[in-house]
Amino acid sequence: MKNSNFVPFTKVDLQDGFWRDRYELNKQVSINNVRIRFEESGRFDAMRFNFLQNGRKPHIFFDSDVAKWMEAVAYLIAKDPDSMRGHEALCEELIDCMERAQRPDGYLNSTFQQIHPEKIFRDRGLHELYCAGHLIEAAVAYHKATGRDRFLKMMERYCDCIERAFITEKTASFTTPGHEEIELALFKLYRHTGNGKYKRMAEHFLSMRGKDPSESEIPYHNPYGAQDDVDIYHLKDANGHSVRALYLYSGIADMALENGDTILYSNLEQVFEDITERKMYVTGGVGSTRAYEGFTVPYDLPNHTAYTESCCAIAMMLFASRMRRIEKKAKYGHLMERVLYNAMLSSTSLDGKAFFYENPLEISLPEYNREVAATSERRERLPITQRVEVFSCSCCPPNINRFFGELGSYLCVEDEDGVCVEQYVSSDIKTAYGTIRIREQYAIDGKAVLASDGYTAKKLSLRIPEWSRCVIATLNGKEIDLDVNNSYETVAVDSAFTLELDFHIAPRFVAANPSVRANAGRVALCYGPVVYCLEKSDNGDHLNRIEVAIDALDDVTYDLDFHKLYSISLPAYRTADSQSLYFNAAESNLEPITAKFIPYFSFANRGESDMLVWVRRH
Amino acid sequence: MKNSNFVPFTKVDLQDGFWRDRYELNKQVSINNVRIRFEESGRFDAMRFNFLQNGRKPHIFFDSDVAKWMEAVAYLIAKDPDSMRGHEALCEELIDCMERAQRPDGYLNSTFQQIHPEKIFRDRGLHELYCAGHLIEAAVAYHKATGRDRFLKMMERYCDCIERAFITEKTASFTTPGHEEIELALFKLYRHTGNGKYKRMAEHFLSMRGKDPSESEIPYHNPYGAQDDVDIYHLKDANGHSVRALYLYSGIADMALENGDTILYSNLEQVFEDITERKMYVTGGVGSTRAYEGFTVPYDLPNHTAYTESCCAIAMMLFASRMRRIEKKAKYGHLMERVLYNAMLSSTSLDGKAFFYENPLEISLPEYNREVAATSERRERLPITQRVEVFSCSCCPPNINRFFGELGSYLCVEDEDGVCVEQYVSSDIKTAYGTIRIREQYAIDGKAVLASDGYTAKKLSLRIPEWSRCVIATLNGKEIDLDVNNSYETVAVDSAFTLELDFHIAPRFVAANPSVRANAGRVALCYGPVVYCLEKSDNGDHLNRIEVAIDALDDVTYDLDFHKLYSISLPAYRTADSQSLYFNAAESNLEPITAKFIPYFSFANRGESDMLVWVRRH
Repeated sequence: MKNSNFVPFTKVDLQDGFWRDRYELNKQVSINNVRIRFEESGRFDAMRFNFLQNGRKPHIFFDSDVAKWMEAVAYLIAKDPDSMRGHEALCEELIDCMERAQRPDGYLNSTFQQIHPEKIFRDRGLHELYCAGHLIEAAVAYHKATGRDRFLKMMERYCDCIERAFITEKTASFTTPGHEEIELALFKLYRHTGNGKYKRMAEHFLSMRGKDPSESEIPYHNPYGAQDDVDIYHLKDANGHSVRALYLYSGIADMALENGDTILYSNLEQVFEDITERKMYVTGGVGSTRAYEGFTVPYDLPNHTAYTESCCAIAMMLFASRMRRIEKKAKYGHLMERVLYNAMLSSTSLDGKAFFYENPLEISLPEYNREVAATSERRERLPITQRVEVFSCSCCPPNINRFFGELGSYLCVEDEDGVCVEQYVSSDIKTAYGTIRIREQYAIDGKAVLASDGYTAKKLSLRIPEWSRCVIATLNGKEIDLDVNNSYETVAVDSAFTLELDFHIAPRFVAANPSVRANAGRVALCYGPVVYCLEKSDNGDHLNRIEVAIDALDDVTYDLDFHKLYSISLPAYRTADSQSLYFNAAESNLEPITAKFIPYFSFANRGESDMLVWVRRH
Repeated sequence: MKNSNFVPFTKVDLQDGFWRDRYELNKQVSINNVRIRFEESGRFDAMRFNFLQNGRKPHIFFDSDVAKWMEAVAYLIAKDPDSMRGHEALCEELIDCMERAQRPDGYLNSTFQQIHPEKIFRDRGLHELYCAGHLIEAAVAYHKATGRDRFLKMMERYCDCIERAFITEKTASFTTPGHEEIELALFKLYRHTGNGKYKRMAEHFLSMRGKDPSESEIPYHNPYGAQDDVDIYHLKDANGHSVRALYLYSGIADMALENGDTILYSNLEQVFEDITERKMYVTGGVGSTRAYEGFTVPYDLPNHTAYTESCCAIAMMLFASRMRRIEKKAKYGHLMERVLYNAMLSSTSLDGKAFFYENPLEISLPEYNREVAATSERRERLPITQRVEVFSCSCCPPNINRFFGELGSYLCVEDEDGVCVEQYVSSDIKTAYGTIRIREQYAIDGKAVLASDGYTAKKLSLRIPEWSRCVIATLNGKEIDLDVNNSYETVAVDSAFTLELDFHIAPRFVAANPSVRANAGRVALCYGPVVYCLEKSDNGDHLNRIEVAIDALDDVTYDLDFHKLYSISLPAYRTADSQSLYFNAAESNLEPITAKFIPYFSFANRGESDMLVWVRRH
């Protein structure tokens, strides 16, 4: 295993373009909007330990919501402290409150201390260590951003408390957390402080998993719900609650990376394959059922009941980026690109104010809306059709805040051979080998220009996107040969270079494995990294009446549209109206139409609307 | 409105063939098997009013289960008393017990009297009048079959009790039953006894519906759950719990018939259209969601979560046959044929021992079975995949028993013009105009021969099946012209005649209205009255990989198979395996195969198997 690191966001300046717009939207709108909703919903008051004044009872994972928001603020302080003074003041106030509230033994949790202290470390299902993990991550980020270590020291004391309860004195009633997260956080704390105790604690929690028979109860009505069925050296497939699972896999990846543990890595690679080749939506989203918010069986990928929680998109980025650090395989970057442009972006409205918890791949309103309204306990509950500003279970919005805050950390990897460009995003990246400039309209024209004035590594590595079938590369104005093998290409470069890349973007129809029942006879339009969809707003009612022929790709037109990427229009067919419920199939008719596709991530931004990713193939 | 009556089953002798086999299976196997399961499950003990001895608590509608079984026995006694001596003895024993238990005021209910007498006529949701209705129907049938009126008199006393509680003294806490049934039963009791009080009681219950605001609570989490949203003169569409709704519509049809009420009939016709043109599966089944076991919105007809309760098939027969009595329109007979050969037959295993409560139109086991097993509260619960011998909510099996017991009552209508043949079923039918013999292998060769030696009406009316596109008719050996207009044809016949009919049966692919999302791009194979399906047992895994072209109908082969009708094989295509989860659609391949279809009703008779009615169209 090479010593590979993603260049951290602190060394990345996003430049004009699609992703900087998204970054700024998070910074200028989303983070503030989440703050307002969290204040209204009593989340900050809970953390001020004064919920009794306002009468709103803290929820068991309010602490994690607040912590993720603080972590997001810390990332933004690190890049642009002046813009964050107001949010920083709130962070300081919350840290004051936490400091006063922290017990002498180090314990800190707003819900347990205020509502049910008798349950402290007694109930594995109540997200206690999950909250601790998010507080630790926030404290590390805050220390890095501000240099002030008060919050960090509080968390170190909390870790001491956790260590006593779970490891040295074993007074806790359970051995591993019901919802993973603290494992990641402890590795982060270890890397930040250099204190090996935190690494050992993380390894303890990971190694105990699947070993205590008393913890094989069935959370979420599923034996895989909290990953208690197997120990980490026997993991082969992705199971159970998807966010928990992906946080676990990310923690194991940290352990594999720190210890050079090839067995763990090899198992994780199988898990990664199981997800990406059997259990993942074309958008990069995962989680096929809301019953336990999780992975189900291979190829079970229903579209209109897709769960695909926004937090899963983030968790996929966490997992894949760790795997990429362990081994230079293009599949990790391919996945990150897929998630970034689709499942990740769809989580947030184009105005930055509202969020999806679930991200369905189909909405068919006329059939269902009355029922959903009429039946409070309809067992087939369908996902929401509109993003909302806050949910009662609001894990996703602040998770999205913190993700975009460190977006820059996912673009480039540096190792002993030089720099590897993983994502083509307009930015100036200060690598250990000098600054590299990336400029692109990648999702519009499939091109990127990489340049440097003082690059010291001689070689530059490039991830060739999996959708590219032909790359034309020009180095300092001269065409060079690049293979297209869905993998990496390495280019020898001088200290000063300009490398122009044209990945030959074109629309394509993607088919799903024929074992995916939901997509039988259907195709999804993709253009470069972007998955497209039909919306009722453009195509009228009953999107499932529409059929597209593969050769329609010869006759497409493009518009730059409200979502700032291309909309794609092409000739299609629509089943003609019929009066009868059932009739001779020989009598059914198709009418020619033009179908207009928009990027999936931009659906539900023009009011409630039917939407369809997987369109019937003519 | 004409004075039309179906010739009752007592005057119909089924003859060798498909339907007599089914009738005999019910008589010789099903009714006995249900008896055994009901004895084991304590249903009869509850009715013996000695559940305390066996410790099994009666269920709120055990009485209706037992009553339906007794009604079935009565129908069989009427045709063949010797074969039913054993069952008749049990009926007598149960009547003894009921007689001892009946309260002096006439009240009789095994659950309420034994378990919670304080709730008598206090809780609209507990099926009390539903149980009373079934007891009344059983008592009428038993009196007709045996001539003994003890049970009937008990029910008349019970009706007096109900009249006092709900009409004259109004001591009951509610005005209309939560689950309709007593309305039908009271009309039956009125027709049998001639006592107009029962008709008035039925009309009272019907007329009160939708009028008491205190009863517009939301049963089954749906405002339409128990048809409380509208009064019977404002009904326009089918809503809520499907069995309750259809029992209500049948009761209203009785009222329209008895009173010559054309407004009620016209409303019911709209409801009938709403069901058959917007809310009915191709099998004649209804009920699209298990959430409230009911009708949902138009064209919402999911296949693998279809509810389509077996009792709904029976209720559709009750409703349609009443509508046919009111007006001679072929659509009623068309529907009855569709239900008989599909939704009705699928309810029972080919060995007669086991029953479906829900009748799905698709089973996809590999994707779901682990989940179903693993998640006790999976919100998207799927229907059972195998028929079972008894359910805890076992309304369907004895309902099926009684339906087959009076199967003969659905074949012919007689009015002042003569006889109208509605269903082509081998039988000798003693009509008011002489005996008519029907001989057929209708579902195999699409033919029927009607004959009589002493027919006195001069005209014979025939329902031309809706699937027939060409009829060749031969009267006494000489071809005659018959129109094919999806309606009726009237043939002038002599006293002695032989009329040979060939409806030109052929396989056809049926399409669904394009607004049915679940069936977009799909077709169902039908052959005459029978809907066909694919089973994994014949076609391997992943039935959704299969595509059929319409012109494959030019190249079919037939086998007489385990279900005693044709299996149909034809050329088709199957999507080739793929390693990738997602790939360029231009690279997907089809392999030629032969697809074998079996009648839908016979699915799940060879072990657990995937099944598919709506197959993708090539």
